[in-house]
Amino acid sequence: MFKKLFAGILAITLFQFVYADQFINLHSPDGNLQLGLNNRDNGDLVYRLTYKGKTVIAPSGLGFKLRVPDVSLIKFTLISTDSTLLDETWKPVWGEQSSIRNNFKQLVLNLKEQSGSGITIKIIFRVFNDGLGFRYEFPKQDKLNHFIIADELTQFALSGDHKAFWIPGDYDSNEYGYYTTKLSEIDATRGEKVTEIAVRTLYDKNAVQTPLMMKTSDGLYINIHEAALINYPAMNLVLDKSSFTFNAHLVPDAVGNKAYLQAPAVTPWRTIIVSDKATDILASKMILNLNEPSKITDVSWIKPQKFVGVWWEMHVGKSSWDCSGGQVGSQQATKVTHGANTANVKKYIDFASKNGINGILVEGWNTGWEDWFGNWKEDVFDFVTPYPDFNIKELTAYAKAKGVKIIMHHETSGSVTNYERWMDTAYRLMRKYGYDAVKTGYVGRIIPRGEHHDGQWMVRHFERVAKKTADYHIMVDMHEPVRPTGLHRTYPNFLACEAARGNEFNAWSMGNMPEHETILPFTRLMGGPMDYTPGIFKIKMSDYNSSKQEQVHTTLAKQLALYVTMYSPLQMAADLPENYEAKMDAFQFIKDVAVDWDDTKIIDAEPGDYIIIARKAKEKANWFMGAITDENARSFTTELNFLDAGKKYIATIYRDAENADWKNNPEKYVIEKFIADAATKLKLNLRPGGGTAVSLIPATEAELKKIKQYGN
Amino acid sequence: MFKKLFAGILAITLFQFVYADQFINLHSPDGNLQLGLNNRDNGDLVYRLTYKGKTVIAPSGLGFKLRVPDVSLIKFTLISTDSTLLDETWKPVWGEQSSIRNNFKQLVLNLKEQSGSGITIKIIFRVFNDGLGFRYEFPKQDKLNHFIIADELTQFALSGDHKAFWIPGDYDSNEYGYYTTKLSEIDATRGEKVTEIAVRTLYDKNAVQTPLMMKTSDGLYINIHEAALINYPAMNLVLDKSSFTFNAHLVPDAVGNKAYLQAPAVTPWRTIIVSDKATDILASKMILNLNEPSKITDVSWIKPQKFVGVWWEMHVGKSSWDCSGGQVGSQQATKVTHGANTANVKKYIDFASKNGINGILVEGWNTGWEDWFGNWKEDVFDFVTPYPDFNIKELTAYAKAKGVKIIMHHETSGSVTNYERWMDTAYRLMRKYGYDAVKTGYVGRIIPRGEHHDGQWMVRHFERVAKKTADYHIMVDMHEPVRPTGLHRTYPNFLACEAARGNEFNAWSMGNMPEHETILPFTRLMGGPMDYTPGIFKIKMSDYNSSKQEQVHTTLAKQLALYVTMYSPLQMAADLPENYEAKMDAFQFIKDVAVDWDDTKIIDAEPGDYIIIARKAKEKANWFMGAITDENARSFTTELNFLDAGKKYIATIYRDAENADWKNNPEKYVIEKFIADAATKLKLNLRPGGGTAVSLIPATEAELKKIKQYGN
Repeated sequence: MFKKLFAGILAITLFQFVYADQFINLHSPDGNLQLGLNNRDNGDLVYRLTYKGKTVIAPSGLGFKLRVPDVSLIKFTLISTDSTLLDETWKPVWGEQSSIRNNFKQLVLNLKEQSGSGITIKIIFRVFNDGLGFRYEFPKQDKLNHFIIADELTQFALSGDHKAFWIPGDYDSNEYGYYTTKLSEIDATRGEKVTEIAVRTLYDKNAVQTPLMMKTSDGLYINIHEAALINYPAMNLVLDKSSFTFNAHLVPDAVGNKAYLQAPAVTPWRTIIVSDKATDILASKMILNLNEPSKITDVSWIKPQKFVGVWWEMHVGKSSWDCSGGQVGSQQATKVTHGANTANVKKYIDFASKNGINGILVEGWNTGWEDWFGNWKEDVFDFVTPYPDFNIKELTAYAKAKGVKIIMHHETSGSVTNYERWMDTAYRLMRKYGYDAVKTGYVGRIIPRGEHHDGQWMVRHFERVAKKTADYHIMVDMHEPVRPTGLHRTYPNFLACEAARGNEFNAWSMGNMPEHETILPFTRLMGGPMDYTPGIFKIKMSDYNSSKQEQVHTTLAKQLALYVTMYSPLQMAADLPENYEAKMDAFQFIKDVAVDWDDTKIIDAEPGDYIIIARKAKEKANWFMGAITDENARSFTTELNFLDAGKKYIATIYRDAENADWKNNPEKYVIEKFIADAATKLKLNLRPGGGTAVSLIPATEAELKKIKQYGN
Repeated sequence: MFKKLFAGILAITLFQFVYADQFINLHSPDGNLQLGLNNRDNGDLVYRLTYKGKTVIAPSGLGFKLRVPDVSLIKFTLISTDSTLLDETWKPVWGEQSSIRNNFKQLVLNLKEQSGSGITIKIIFRVFNDGLGFRYEFPKQDKLNHFIIADELTQFALSGDHKAFWIPGDYDSNEYGYYTTKLSEIDATRGEKVTEIAVRTLYDKNAVQTPLMMKTSDGLYINIHEAALINYPAMNLVLDKSSFTFNAHLVPDAVGNKAYLQAPAVTPWRTIIVSDKATDILASKMILNLNEPSKITDVSWIKPQKFVGVWWEMHVGKSSWDCSGGQVGSQQATKVTHGANTANVKKYIDFASKNGINGILVEGWNTGWEDWFGNWKEDVFDFVTPYPDFNIKELTAYAKAKGVKIIMHHETSGSVTNYERWMDTAYRLMRKYGYDAVKTGYVGRIIPRGEHHDGQWMVRHFERVAKKTADYHIMVDMHEPVRPTGLHRTYPNFLACEAARGNEFNAWSMGNMPEHETILPFTRLMGGPMDYTPGIFKIKMSDYNSSKQEQVHTTLAKQLALYVTMYSPLQMAADLPENYEAKMDAFQFIKDVAVDWDDTKIIDAEPGDYIIIARKAKEKANWFMGAITDENARSFTTELNFLDAGKKYIATIYRDAENADWKNNPEKYVIEKFIADAATKLKLNLRPGGGTAVSLIPATEAELKKIKQYGN
């Protein structure tokens, strides 16, 4: 299915170099990006990066401090270099576009540590048109077999006090709202106030997480993250404010070590995506290109899909996860009905079946929820014992008869040793009942105690889950994992994950500010699809309980637009069936919108402000467009020149009503239908916290006669 | 099979008490032991213990410091007491005797913490004729659900500067030789010199491990240990030398906590066995009595047995664990043959079959040994992939045809997360090939990293292994586990474990001093059977390699006596078949000796000096006697009055030759046959580091005519 990665590589010499006296330089294929390598006066190896002559990364250190053996890898003798070029195109199993170009120049430095350890390492640089990726490689060698990393010494020195979209550095949670400040104003202790996060491990006032999005005063957009995080801890960044230099900070293990490796080994890629256009950041496929091709050969069972779930009703406090009725999202005192009861699940099955939704997630189906949270309890769930009111056999048959599938739920409570003991048994149960997708969860402090969600041990666990579910032909949606780094290219059954502050926070906390969804694509989504759970129609929690102040911080129309702006092959229609049934005209967009795409156009975007994206459904002529704004009303005129020239489309526009806004009038929307084509200039009027969703479906002759051309 | 534990309890009031002003007293059934309970002046609850009026334990604290909730449980209001008496007899599945009397008076203190936490606890005291056991119970209650123990505050205040047989307090190893010093001379830092132990975690100069054996200047023998260690860390003891008070020190977890419990919960029993006769200590069954009856109902598949193994040849450097020939016990430089090759295993099968030995352990059969040690590597073994030269199918069939069974070997290298992932798969492989016993191993630093061999997480793992192997009808022999506490009563498939310094140390280290085996029954063996691997006939390692100085620190005759003095239902004939074939007259004792017993007589014993034990084979008339000494020659005259009166026996005496001694002439032995009876007074002449083994088998008429009466 995939072309061999290096099939197109040409072994060419890109430059002559005299190391230590002179720069080694490497340009991107289009010449805009330039990587430079040389030594500091003290002999340390450094790299730098410019974009169209502007500094992206000032001279920045590379290397490691090892604990075992006790040696620093920072000063090197250059043994040799290899340089190559690749230009290939490959087809993802699913994605934002049906084919992806992978085009870079590569430079490999073969280095020998200078202090006498005899250790050799390689640093591999790939300069793409959209950014730089580099990784360290420890070749098989006599001088290094098993080793322990005390610190990675990679630096990212920035050219000034950029605007940054950041969340606090943390070993266990990425479920913070974003702060938008200058670099000099970063203050991770702000995370201490975010008490609605179950497990936070803040550690340094100047620490932030990746993907880190920045904008320079001279108009560069810079995104720092990593790709192919395998068998290694996640990288946080700690800012030295005196020099605007970020130092890599790896998440430690239970005894303070960072990574246990055995040569040959590679680190993840460190990625710097850069452009003078914000839209290029969202269009970048560099992180995917730096991941390995699919390890799954038969991918026929992997299906992008939409799903509903017995889930939001627990978040809003209408029903409970546990059978005894106490466990709800809002932690309210009054007991409610158990959500995952057979009759209620059938209601969701009926709704999904009627509306062409494939999956039904059911949370709270299994015993253990009475005592699942906050106690660092190891034997909390067994993943195979249903509550007595959840008739798994009957429901499986019922769903099958209705042509839909129940999605399994495995909340681990962070007790991963326990989950690993049960995984095979649990997946066998799924196969027995024909479940082909599972949502996992890691709410709680990790067991093995002392380990963190984002440390090497858990990174290996998440990969193990991706592999083992693949062995069982199970698709997986992970909640509370380490943030993704493009691994869904390698394990395309790993459809989506959470790893950020999802829509759920709107149900029972201060929520997600209206700008939140305009930042996520520039940050969290750079690594992979998110199960954000859009589609909430009942915006205010006071509709469930008059004493509640919480609400979703968007308009209803923006919830629809999120199905396009927040890319995922797994999209939930998160609200309750009755809320959809009350507004089936708006729900039509959720029914229609695709989850897999031939092509994607990032029409316009500015992080923290707005995003406008159009996507063409996979193997269909239909396009869908989403436009969202932050707390400000915004107007745009958008050309539909991506449409097939000469073809006419029915444009169904789901927009905020004129007087709508997220706070005072969030549920008012207008639906309009027009004929549109490639020449159409669509006017978008986004209300505060609002959005517009548009479906563009080739028009029939009858429709052409009946429906008015847009703009006339 | 077992009588219900509390079937015979009489609810009687044993005393009147006025708490806080006056002692609560409780006597043992025979009146020799007296437990006293009252308060210190500051209100702390204390206990004390006397034996025939002599102080065993001076007033000593009880209670806990909890971390969650943050409260100390040391001052209590006495709510009520319950007192009961039990006198029952039960039958173990296997053991040193076929029935065991369980006779104690019990006092339960129902206590409420005084500082306002509202927490209630119970302390349960059982006074036996042979000692005191007490445990804490946390009843189900509103004020306490999940909780974390920061410290257990139990004390053992001794009456003076007793002689003690101790090993250093350590979180990961119990494989030290014993030190015999006064309490005031305890110095755990001596353990730092013991470099032949793979993983040591010493932590306090004054820390020792249990079972701790002591002797007072006025002739009391005192043994402190614990019983029924389940879901709790092992207890070490830290001595306050100013008061000769031991403070309980629980092995911590990766983050420094001691135990995670949920009410209702109980701690293990703290045990103090005491007598004025050393033999009573060895005869005590108190620790077994404090454990729960068997949880396994069908025990028909559990078989005490002898075994040989492809094992000692790796320790002596003749062959290797790994296929490439590098991994041997002595870490020698030259490569040798892989031990677990098909032809070699067949040789052991032949030998076992010919000599009525049931089992053949094969170590090094599976891939992973090239890289198994010292690297904290997680994915080290898979427990299912044989080396190419080990034909598992062929060998299974060969063993079956010869009427013997291969014993599986699962070395984990301390990577327990990895083992737990593989356990089910590995046990299924065993069932497929009909293996019904496994030897496990935990050489190496534990993964989950930061956990210790003796912490709660590993204690739970060891129980999990005992349970899961039982589910698969597999017997288990654990190496490098936490030291045992009588759990083999509850899980009788848990035949034996190592958990001390075994015979193997004699092959490649300074070894075990001649007194070692005279101390082990008073210390390590108090908790359960040990797989010590006796039966080494080739005493000096120079016989394998002339450059070697190492040797077994006993005579050959003492190696035979160990089969009686070191009780285990699983006894290895540890030496190489060719070494046995050269001395088949001596090997006859190993062939004859039983591994399961109707009765046991501790004839004479002094810790560190000598032990003489006789045992009657289960459901047979045969008796076997073992006598061992330390580095000193000793003579005894032993009455055989335990024999059936009026019955004549062939006494086959395997003794040291007159000029034998462990150092200069260890392999010289004499075998004599006499007729003996209950009136016989047997003279034992034990040479330095020597011993005598005697089999006593009812004589036939023909033998009576042919063989001389002993002493005539």
